[in-house]
Amino acid sequence: MLVVHKYGGTSVGSPERIRNVAEKVIGYKKKGADLIVVVSAMSGETDRLLKLAGALSTLPDERELDVLLSTGEQVTSALLALTLKEMGTDAVSLLGSQIRIVTDSAYGKARIEEIEGEKMTSYLREGKVVVVPGFQGIDDAGNITTLGRGGSDTTAVAVAAALHADLCEIYTDVDGVYTTDPHITQKARRLDRISYDEMLEMASLGAKVLQIRSVELARKFKVPLLVKSSFVEGKGTLVCEEVPTMEQVVVSGVTYNKNEAKITVSEVPDKPGTASTIFAPLAEANIVVDMIVQNVSHKGYTDMTFTTAKVDAKKAYRLMEKVAVELGAKLVAIDEDIAKVSIVGSGMRSHSGIATKMFSILSNEGINLEMISTSEIKISCVIKEKYGELAVRALHTAFGLDREEVVEEQ
Amino acid sequence: MLVVHKYGGTSVGSPERIRNVAEKVIGYKKKGADLIVVVSAMSGETDRLLKLAGALSTLPDERELDVLLSTGEQVTSALLALTLKEMGTDAVSLLGSQIRIVTDSAYGKARIEEIEGEKMTSYLREGKVVVVPGFQGIDDAGNITTLGRGGSDTTAVAVAAALHADLCEIYTDVDGVYTTDPHITQKARRLDRISYDEMLEMASLGAKVLQIRSVELARKFKVPLLVKSSFVEGKGTLVCEEVPTMEQVVVSGVTYNKNEAKITVSEVPDKPGTASTIFAPLAEANIVVDMIVQNVSHKGYTDMTFTTAKVDAKKAYRLMEKVAVELGAKLVAIDEDIAKVSIVGSGMRSHSGIATKMFSILSNEGINLEMISTSEIKISCVIKEKYGELAVRALHTAFGLDREEVVEEQ
Repeated sequence: MLVVHKYGGTSVGSPERIRNVAEKVIGYKKKGADLIVVVSAMSGETDRLLKLAGALSTLPDERELDVLLSTGEQVTSALLALTLKEMGTDAVSLLGSQIRIVTDSAYGKARIEEIEGEKMTSYLREGKVVVVPGFQGIDDAGNITTLGRGGSDTTAVAVAAALHADLCEIYTDVDGVYTTDPHITQKARRLDRISYDEMLEMASLGAKVLQIRSVELARKFKVPLLVKSSFVEGKGTLVCEEVPTMEQVVVSGVTYNKNEAKITVSEVPDKPGTASTIFAPLAEANIVVDMIVQNVSHKGYTDMTFTTAKVDAKKAYRLMEKVAVELGAKLVAIDEDIAKVSIVGSGMRSHSGIATKMFSILSNEGINLEMISTSEIKISCVIKEKYGELAVRALHTAFGLDREEVVEEQ
Repeated sequence: MLVVHKYGGTSVGSPERIRNVAEKVIGYKKKGADLIVVVSAMSGETDRLLKLAGALSTLPDERELDVLLSTGEQVTSALLALTLKEMGTDAVSLLGSQIRIVTDSAYGKARIEEIEGEKMTSYLREGKVVVVPGFQGIDDAGNITTLGRGGSDTTAVAVAAALHADLCEIYTDVDGVYTTDPHITQKARRLDRISYDEMLEMASLGAKVLQIRSVELARKFKVPLLVKSSFVEGKGTLVCEEVPTMEQVVVSGVTYNKNEAKITVSEVPDKPGTASTIFAPLAEANIVVDMIVQNVSHKGYTDMTFTTAKVDAKKAYRLMEKVAVELGAKLVAIDEDIAKVSIVGSGMRSHSGIATKMFSILSNEGINLEMISTSEIKISCVIKEKYGELAVRALHTAFGLDREEVVEEQ
């Protein structure tokens, strides 16, 4: 059995914590599994390095920034390997360039193209724990690349996929994936299992736990992910393919996002090419658009509404003012006081009436819906920001997600 | 023209100082030379990393320690490269593994076996400044190795040798090599030139300025070394092959070392094999012996005296106590209150009477000589520690090394 462990920055944030990780790893290894351990930079280290670069350059060269930042994970991997050896368990660190983890050349956000498994396999065969710095690779020309923030999750999953590991365990500072944000309702419940698709749709929850790219990769290569806490014992949450038993639950979670703003371009003359005229300048400006809703045409005019991250909203608004002139649209409006509330569940595929139920629950609380968007396994509604928490709690209860002793002990 | 610059830890100890180095490099580059810049870790960084390792292991695994420590220089090289680019001069950092700087596998004290020049040459041809982290390489199997403290000097010289550079400039926190330690006499004078051989013999002065290994390497490959200050303008000291003009000066410098202790094994029965019986256990214990003096045999007995570093002296003394029993020697004595004073100069080769002059100068000051040892270009005397500074000043003056306006402006 081959298992990949991944420990985040908080989990390796001090020598004491690195020693804890080593103890965990040794305990696991004693059960007989071969182990590869992927580590992040010690918490604070990446920021320390960025600050040094920031003191010397307003826009640091991307290639050199990757050379700089990759040292953070390198330090942790060396420290963990020498700690394991100190504690009597043979171990070896292998950098991205040594393994080799080959990526494209997009510095700062590189994508893994290939992982050579031979070196890791040969060390595993010698009984060694292989420690791998996350977040880094090399391109074809041998330049150091990094995968972007949180890239260590992606490294762990990619290594697990390349070596056909049986399991990839992600150790972090929460003890699993919850039905909703426990800060909003104490009734939030840890899920024992969740499907890859649901996890992806629950991005706004999941992003705090798992990098979305790593979940996509896990789905593609069918790597089971187990999310656990580094600090407390527990079963964690298994992210895996859908299994029949999971279908009994219609809604798996309620997500909530108040970091978006809504922009509406009103009374746009409805003719071919309107949508691309609106969205092309946003794409050019690298502004990511989340929801898009276009109302049916009314007397030859239509309204186009979309949401973007709040940080990009003002820039998007100014672009739309120009576009509106070009298109002959009447009005551009921006609303930053919104929240997006979503329910996610694979069960929706085979259950009808879920959307209707959601709308009536919100309506019963007197909450007006400003935008609606649906996918196969997710329904999202944009509402006024002030109703956000209320909506989450109402949906969480009505869809039977609240924590109960009986449910908890299943 | 190709020049290699090397900047030590103090010279790159903060973002401001890295910016100063970048300015220096750009100024030099504008004169038209191709430039390779070798950098040390920012001052304090290596100690920070060692402390982390020390918190996790009493005797950290050597391979992993090298993975850890090599990040220090990697950080500086990335920071300097991105600073150069920020300031409009194209640059690229190249790690030991990218260049490749191939060493043996002696972690922590690896020796460079080969440096591949192609990658550096091709970047130089593109007009880029190549920034190389000192102190690190890789072995045949691709493991990261380090060259030991001060190894960045060795990297700089080795790179200069591999690429047949015209000059290797070592930037440090002193402005050159002095006739003696300026802390002992203000009359100490910066040397414009010194030969490789003299520099090697002046180890106890030179060690503060240049790693001895780097001087050996420079001599072997005839790389001219220019030692200069990062902080003040000046001509520095050129370390090079002997040239005829240098022979006019008989003594180039006076060195001084009070970090040794003297151990005497008295009345050793004088028979073949005695010396090896005495020194074998020291070699086994990795104790480096500096001076060795054996008196002529007297009635079948001889005295063997040697010096070692003070830190090793007690251990050496205990080993000698055992050896004395084995050999039937009468007495073992240890004296830690000694100083070694030496005069160094290529001119000694062709001038007689230098030793006699040295002895009489010391005698005139009432200083007794406890041990004498000579090489082709060096004469060393062990004296009581308390006379050390007095001896240095007397020799410095008597051999005409004192600073004078006329001499200074030559």
